[in-house]
Amino acid sequence: MITREKHNQMANAIRFLSMDAVEKANSGHPGLPMGAADIATVLFTRFLSFDPKNPLWPDRDRFVLSAGHGSMLLYSLLYLTGYEDMTIEDIKQFRQLGAKTAGHPEYGHASGIETTTGPLGQGIATAVGMAIAERKLSGEFGKDVQNHHTYVLAGDGCLMEGISQEAIALAGHLKLNKLIVFWDDNNISIDGPISIADSTDQHARFRASKWHTIAVDGHDPDAIAAAIEEAHKSDKPTMIACKTVIGFGAPNKAGTHKVHGSPLGAAEIAATRVALGWEAEPFVVPAEVLDAWRLAGLRSTKARKDWEARLAALPAEKKTEFQRRFAGDLPGTFDGAIDAYKKKLADTKPTLATRKASEDALEVINGVLIETIGGSADLTGSNNTKTSQTASITPDDFSGRYLHYGVREHGMAAAMNGIALHGGLIPYSGGFLIFSDYCRPSIRLAALMGIRAIHVLTHDSIGLGEDGPTHQPVEHMAALRAIPNLNVFRPADATETAECWQIALHSKDRPSAIALTRQNLIAARTEYSEKNLSAFGAYDIAPADGAKVTIFASGSEVEIALAARKLLEEKKIPTRVVSVPCFELFAEQPEAYRKAIIGNAPVKVAVEAAIRQGWDSIIGSDGIFVGMKSFGASGPYKELYEHFGITPGAIVAAVESKLA
Amino acid sequence: MITREKHNQMANAIRFLSMDAVEKANSGHPGLPMGAADIATVLFTRFLSFDPKNPLWPDRDRFVLSAGHGSMLLYSLLYLTGYEDMTIEDIKQFRQLGAKTAGHPEYGHASGIETTTGPLGQGIATAVGMAIAERKLSGEFGKDVQNHHTYVLAGDGCLMEGISQEAIALAGHLKLNKLIVFWDDNNISIDGPISIADSTDQHARFRASKWHTIAVDGHDPDAIAAAIEEAHKSDKPTMIACKTVIGFGAPNKAGTHKVHGSPLGAAEIAATRVALGWEAEPFVVPAEVLDAWRLAGLRSTKARKDWEARLAALPAEKKTEFQRRFAGDLPGTFDGAIDAYKKKLADTKPTLATRKASEDALEVINGVLIETIGGSADLTGSNNTKTSQTASITPDDFSGRYLHYGVREHGMAAAMNGIALHGGLIPYSGGFLIFSDYCRPSIRLAALMGIRAIHVLTHDSIGLGEDGPTHQPVEHMAALRAIPNLNVFRPADATETAECWQIALHSKDRPSAIALTRQNLIAARTEYSEKNLSAFGAYDIAPADGAKVTIFASGSEVEIALAARKLLEEKKIPTRVVSVPCFELFAEQPEAYRKAIIGNAPVKVAVEAAIRQGWDSIIGSDGIFVGMKSFGASGPYKELYEHFGITPGAIVAAVESKLA
Repeated sequence: MITREKHNQMANAIRFLSMDAVEKANSGHPGLPMGAADIATVLFTRFLSFDPKNPLWPDRDRFVLSAGHGSMLLYSLLYLTGYEDMTIEDIKQFRQLGAKTAGHPEYGHASGIETTTGPLGQGIATAVGMAIAERKLSGEFGKDVQNHHTYVLAGDGCLMEGISQEAIALAGHLKLNKLIVFWDDNNISIDGPISIADSTDQHARFRASKWHTIAVDGHDPDAIAAAIEEAHKSDKPTMIACKTVIGFGAPNKAGTHKVHGSPLGAAEIAATRVALGWEAEPFVVPAEVLDAWRLAGLRSTKARKDWEARLAALPAEKKTEFQRRFAGDLPGTFDGAIDAYKKKLADTKPTLATRKASEDALEVINGVLIETIGGSADLTGSNNTKTSQTASITPDDFSGRYLHYGVREHGMAAAMNGIALHGGLIPYSGGFLIFSDYCRPSIRLAALMGIRAIHVLTHDSIGLGEDGPTHQPVEHMAALRAIPNLNVFRPADATETAECWQIALHSKDRPSAIALTRQNLIAARTEYSEKNLSAFGAYDIAPADGAKVTIFASGSEVEIALAARKLLEEKKIPTRVVSVPCFELFAEQPEAYRKAIIGNAPVKVAVEAAIRQGWDSIIGSDGIFVGMKSFGASGPYKELYEHFGITPGAIVAAVESKLA
Repeated sequence: MITREKHNQMANAIRFLSMDAVEKANSGHPGLPMGAADIATVLFTRFLSFDPKNPLWPDRDRFVLSAGHGSMLLYSLLYLTGYEDMTIEDIKQFRQLGAKTAGHPEYGHASGIETTTGPLGQGIATAVGMAIAERKLSGEFGKDVQNHHTYVLAGDGCLMEGISQEAIALAGHLKLNKLIVFWDDNNISIDGPISIADSTDQHARFRASKWHTIAVDGHDPDAIAAAIEEAHKSDKPTMIACKTVIGFGAPNKAGTHKVHGSPLGAAEIAATRVALGWEAEPFVVPAEVLDAWRLAGLRSTKARKDWEARLAALPAEKKTEFQRRFAGDLPGTFDGAIDAYKKKLADTKPTLATRKASEDALEVINGVLIETIGGSADLTGSNNTKTSQTASITPDDFSGRYLHYGVREHGMAAAMNGIALHGGLIPYSGGFLIFSDYCRPSIRLAALMGIRAIHVLTHDSIGLGEDGPTHQPVEHMAALRAIPNLNVFRPADATETAECWQIALHSKDRPSAIALTRQNLIAARTEYSEKNLSAFGAYDIAPADGAKVTIFASGSEVEIALAARKLLEEKKIPTRVVSVPCFELFAEQPEAYRKAIIGNAPVKVAVEAAIRQGWDSIIGSDGIFVGMKSFGASGPYKELYEHFGITPGAIVAAVESKLA
């Protein structure tokens, strides 16, 4: 049992590490760590099940600092509880180049950072995915090996962001009762008191979405503990509103926005030392306080060992499967299944919309990979993301493998991140390509973290037709390709679609976006290839000796490029077509391959029913681009292709004009 | 007084126009127009103050169809009430190329379309801006000339999108009591019944954000009317939940998701004709029904004329000002003020962060343009968007000119669209460039509509330093430049900042994004230029005879380019520097100017602390790019520039290697 005095000292250790690190860096956010130190101390010393010596223990409780600017809270906790890769030197290096202790918590920088946070609202929405994963895996593997909580510390900013509503509504609907959110209710945001911009009754808001809510004094350890115990008993997710004072302990600045995002300054820190009775030097935690924290870090050792025993006691096959799933490895049968499917496609040469081709590929994939968990933002029938294996998950039955995320692209993408981060499952989901804009911050975080979340994005160009410019992506391929470490695929037919899926699933360290058509496409690849040609990013789909013209195209425009080639060859103009399903993978090929694919044809053409941006890297600024220069229009898609001049005839005319 | 029978016929006119148009187009969404026809009929025949002969009457009530897929509801209403540019031929051309009647309502296609909708949630959030504008202008010019309501029809999808929460919370906080939202509570979304994905108590949710809510039978005209009357009396915004049957009247499909987004089919339409007793041919509205609708369209003629009289009775100066403001023209004094300020800058040559330079420019602008309404998503001190003229608007006092939007980038951007669409005000606001991702769908809509919303986006590169990769935009310049019809500015110093502001304010038909630094920059422009050089998009900032090297740069990297030039010139390598504050404006220059600026230097270099995408159009795929290839890192910004090799030395080394 930790006495109140000991608790205070332990919480103060967080406070001083945080204010001293911010002071040394001359940059950072001391207010949150100081205000939320009591909450964190209660959670980490009495409840959180975690083992600093085994930070990836699959059944650990997850802790997400949604208010990521308060990163020193997390770093302090990791150091204090004894994570070996978080030393006092790391704390001293806060916000310095190359340090693990970045300005905001960066997944992968140090153990115990469960997700990258900082962009507000992302943490709470990511945590929803973690709680979904736990619930699903608990059902699949049993409570003996999956039975943990997901805790979130969120600030006012998190709750003002719209994504939080999507997350809250989804979690409440799914009855994720092991999700517990601490709201750091400090009544302050950067511009001043919350009342400047918000009058929301957060309790009523959460309850409207079927949450349990509790209000406590965020500086009363026993009240916090009682609230957590109450939350554990709830059959709903719980929001614990913790009334706190931002910058708690700083005599002159606490409770004001001055303490939010700036160093306190030497004088105020000195005053805080006096006020809180803290005599230790900066970055020194008194031995008895550090010992108490290290003991807290050992609290779950036995629980973890017991868990190991329970895992060992599982039937061998189940145990192996559990371990494979958490390692993120695909079963050995996967590539063979894709291969067999590709052979079938080479025989049947189907004419299909790639969204339908994706469904067919998923039918194969979901049969082999039990770990996929599909979904859609209320466009299931349009995205073709549901297969025979994926029954719908419902609030009371998680045995299915398909989530109806609702009209919530942003919450969906963040939840997918949480599912991927949790481990044991591979999330994929569906939306319209145009609405990648709605979830871009979460896709970016997946790319920054390097995690496997797969976005099926259908209706990928003016080819969607009548819905018009509000629904026609023209800039979205470029905008997604701009995100580092994101594979953006645009397959040309069923075979490329299967190949892109194969790559996406093998990419453990990178998210994928797969852009797919609404309209039918003929088979561009007519022969079986053992190699995954799409993995080259770009490849010869129709070679030509002594090509005078090379046409580069992606997706639905490969068909148009091939038709243009036919016309040009009839005119005795040797023409080569290169299919470009993935810019990123092409950019990563050896220089010699890249040069060979780009080639030396005097005329280079790129065709994509989207803007030019990005294509100059392949065709040069003097190349011909056949695509979009503006927003689209509403009309039948074939008329739109004519109207915007994305046709074989337009390509031929442009080539002839250049050759003339 | 309209009898119930007449009401039914009038509502059925909407239903049959909608289902017949969708059937003819073989594409579209009949369910919502059929379900919401009664709500719309009550609103347009008994309450909405509008004049089809004067569709831009500044004091008209605004009607926003947030559920934009139900576009035939709006088109039917416009035709029926007698808007001259919406004929039955236009209705027959629904969803055809070139038609006014696009798949989703497109602002500018026809009178009476107050905003483009379709991407869900945008309409309700845009309407918040309209209601803000009304409240503000009502205070400024008096209730005699500004005193109208803003009505919204929103569906379940709108309310599931996170942006709706930001909008609801902002509207409730600001007590926008003249905003009235009809929720088309039909319990159906694309994937099936709402219960598949949502369990939210919408009444409780709205009330938690300080709204008044009412529940009615959405097919009971008198109940709807009574609810609107009640809403008119509320001191809060009101949400009227209208329980409706989607596809009302279709005997076999009503109440199911089958009627949401597909034609009903000939058989079901025939059955609906029987069920609703509608004998008219497709696209024919019986004369007495059409007459009744046309009468409804004349309802507000007197009100509009009375308003004209009240406007005429205003003091001449006030009247002229009102008319200027609604025409969107700037006062004649504006350019002179900017010019005087530019002269001062040429004298003082200040070293400033461009965010601070923007504040200084705004201090001048806000002194001349009384119509600007500033704001920030809770980053006022960081975005530098508040000036001495812009007191904060509070829920009870709209005399200020500054909105604390809260941590709600998406809701802010949509509200700005609504303010711009309403007329009479020019909205600008602040956020971090990285968080343009959070509001991208609304920025896109501004570009699609061609409206003047100005986004100040500070902390525009790794130059923000310690906050790290979650906050460092590397792909956002490219991603914003990808959006058609959006001017994306990145000024290099205080003078360019003033020029970019000048262009943005003159751009009545285009939104602007102005990317600004956190860090100080020296003055790149040292001499006064009468011309707005930034308006060329790119221009010689440091010429050189017989340049062997041309360095193109934007924003903070112009300073680095100029330093590199100095080093290169010392090495007798003639080097020219081109500042590129705006890609879009440069692309619009005459070919000769573009060619001259790009020039023929054997070595072309582009420098931007961001990704390369887009720059190849200027430097070619064989040009040297000095910038980012990955996400950023957390650390002091000068170290980051060194670390990522964006320095004068790195430029010189790359140039020498190329020349060797």
